[in-house]
Amino acid sequence: MNVNGTPYRTVWMENGVVRMINQPLIPHRFEIIDLADHHQTARSISTMIVRGAGAIGATAGYGMAQVALEAPDGAGYMDYVERGAETLRQTRPTAQDLFYAINRVLGAIKAAGSVAQARAVAVNLAEEMADVNAAAAEAIGKHGADLVPDGARVLTHCNAGWLAFVDWGSALAPVYAAARQGKKVFVFADETRPRSQGARLTAWELAGEGIPHAVIADNAAGYLMQHGEVDLVIVGSDRIAANGDVANKIGTYEKALCAADNDVPFYVAAPTSTIDPDCPSGDDIPIEERDQNEVLYAYGLTDEGAFGRVRLAHETCQARNPAFDVTPRHLVKAIITEHGVHKPGEIPLPR
Amino acid sequence: MNVNGTPYRTVWMENGVVRMINQPLIPHRFEIIDLADHHQTARSISTMIVRGAGAIGATAGYGMAQVALEAPDGAGYMDYVERGAETLRQTRPTAQDLFYAINRVLGAIKAAGSVAQARAVAVNLAEEMADVNAAAAEAIGKHGADLVPDGARVLTHCNAGWLAFVDWGSALAPVYAAARQGKKVFVFADETRPRSQGARLTAWELAGEGIPHAVIADNAAGYLMQHGEVDLVIVGSDRIAANGDVANKIGTYEKALCAADNDVPFYVAAPTSTIDPDCPSGDDIPIEERDQNEVLYAYGLTDEGAFGRVRLAHETCQARNPAFDVTPRHLVKAIITEHGVHKPGEIPLPR
Repeated sequence: MNVNGTPYRTVWMENGVVRMINQPLIPHRFEIIDLADHHQTARSISTMIVRGAGAIGATAGYGMAQVALEAPDGAGYMDYVERGAETLRQTRPTAQDLFYAINRVLGAIKAAGSVAQARAVAVNLAEEMADVNAAAAEAIGKHGADLVPDGARVLTHCNAGWLAFVDWGSALAPVYAAARQGKKVFVFADETRPRSQGARLTAWELAGEGIPHAVIADNAAGYLMQHGEVDLVIVGSDRIAANGDVANKIGTYEKALCAADNDVPFYVAAPTSTIDPDCPSGDDIPIEERDQNEVLYAYGLTDEGAFGRVRLAHETCQARNPAFDVTPRHLVKAIITEHGVHKPGEIPLPR
Repeated sequence: MNVNGTPYRTVWMENGVVRMINQPLIPHRFEIIDLADHHQTARSISTMIVRGAGAIGATAGYGMAQVALEAPDGAGYMDYVERGAETLRQTRPTAQDLFYAINRVLGAIKAAGSVAQARAVAVNLAEEMADVNAAAAEAIGKHGADLVPDGARVLTHCNAGWLAFVDWGSALAPVYAAARQGKKVFVFADETRPRSQGARLTAWELAGEGIPHAVIADNAAGYLMQHGEVDLVIVGSDRIAANGDVANKIGTYEKALCAADNDVPFYVAAPTSTIDPDCPSGDDIPIEERDQNEVLYAYGLTDEGAFGRVRLAHETCQARNPAFDVTPRHLVKAIITEHGVHKPGEIPLPR
């Protein structure tokens, strides 16, 4: 998508260097960060310089390409590759796209006839997966736009826009496609505590596309639905179980309950790479718990224009910080993939 | 309750001066602020130096006593009193205790035989209402403690503790009473964006009473209930309609839906002064919308130890900020008042 008139992807690779938008700086600064090796790339995932299911997947694919390029010729090659894959796997536990991308590149490296071939197929496959990721998101936008009527007021949670993918996004792709078709769309962006991805990233993306929007406290989603101010909800997903249960950013389940109680359609948008055929139900999806300081502090720009944080709670206070929750499939009206719009029990498996 | 060993009420009056705990400074500083006249007292309500249904009611009662003391002898007396009452009414629209207290003191002033008598009855009634408020909260604690089993994990939203009343609180009073009976109780405090009353005030109160607790993002309440980590929910209320619908801090409705979906009992604790017999249902309760900067910024203590704020969203971003929502009575298992534990459809009216 365009940033001040220049087209950008969220993450890409140039000459073995992974380059990405530095997301903790958004919306206050726009900077590209360079990651010279797979250790730096792994850290960019665990520290959330890059976040969002699709963007994490593409980054992990590029990280595996870096592993293949870095690994020493000769007998130690596969050892290094396996260790590199494990380093990337350990970055975050919930997003299925991460494991999907690592496993695909790892398989291609193992199938290669030589180290030189392994390096070439790893780089090519990482690039191909990034392109497929962007194309899938664009297809989600086309299918999903049919669900967004002219004049629609859409509520979304967290950021499942183009910053969460290589391009376009999942939950926001139908909004972008509908707006480019000339439909009027208004978006309520849940701020999405504790890390404020809605207030920071979704609002910034929407401003860039010229789509009117308002940020709300996560607590206000139910009120707006009670008062008939939301026509549909679209969220992304970090992992979809085989039965259609959906893991997504913490709080998604609460919004799905609000939608059900007010007869507001609740859609999930995700490429098939987010579907985990080895996960029978949402109970089997591992949920990450993150550092309690994410809850005890809020992070943003000070009045002096510097990045800073403010502490909310008393100095010895503890917090719990689960990062995702599971929305049971019966609360989901449909799942939008690159192949179309599906009932949660009838989603196509990744190919 | 005790603060570092010294007993305090949230608000009181000395020689015509209203004195109160300066709540925006909690938990980082403990200071008492003095309000010399009813204009200052009204501003302490609208700017949320004092907040919480019961504390607002007591403050408004004291404000009316100040009005009665300030009003000029002679023909202009009742004009001044009526204007003062209107100033206090305009501070915040949702909390029923505010209107209840103003109307009661106003009625007593009107019934007085002389200006001197009006001043005396206004001061006496304001003091009496504050005492009744504290006693009602203590009685809520006694009735509610029976609903809190030993080992209970209680989730609460916003702050309905002693800082929200003259003393004891509503939602937290049963927790305090149960803990003083020797029961082990753990409290999950929703942080309660946008103003963080849970992270700031509830956690600080619980620390003062030595009750173990953890702050969570508002988004995490559903997750904890899904995982069997919450035994009951207790919240306060700003206004209860005659049919039992409950207005409370924004987000309460979402927590009630989570509780219903997970068979977790959801209790509302409030004195009968919070019940509005003139409000047939929740649809009739006016809901305040507050300044959007409450959502676009977070306020707290900087790493340098100063009060500060950080901006979350891009600089031209808009926000919506409804401050309360309505939980329909069918989601409420019981309402705890000073008279006992009642079904939402069978609440006693204020006497």
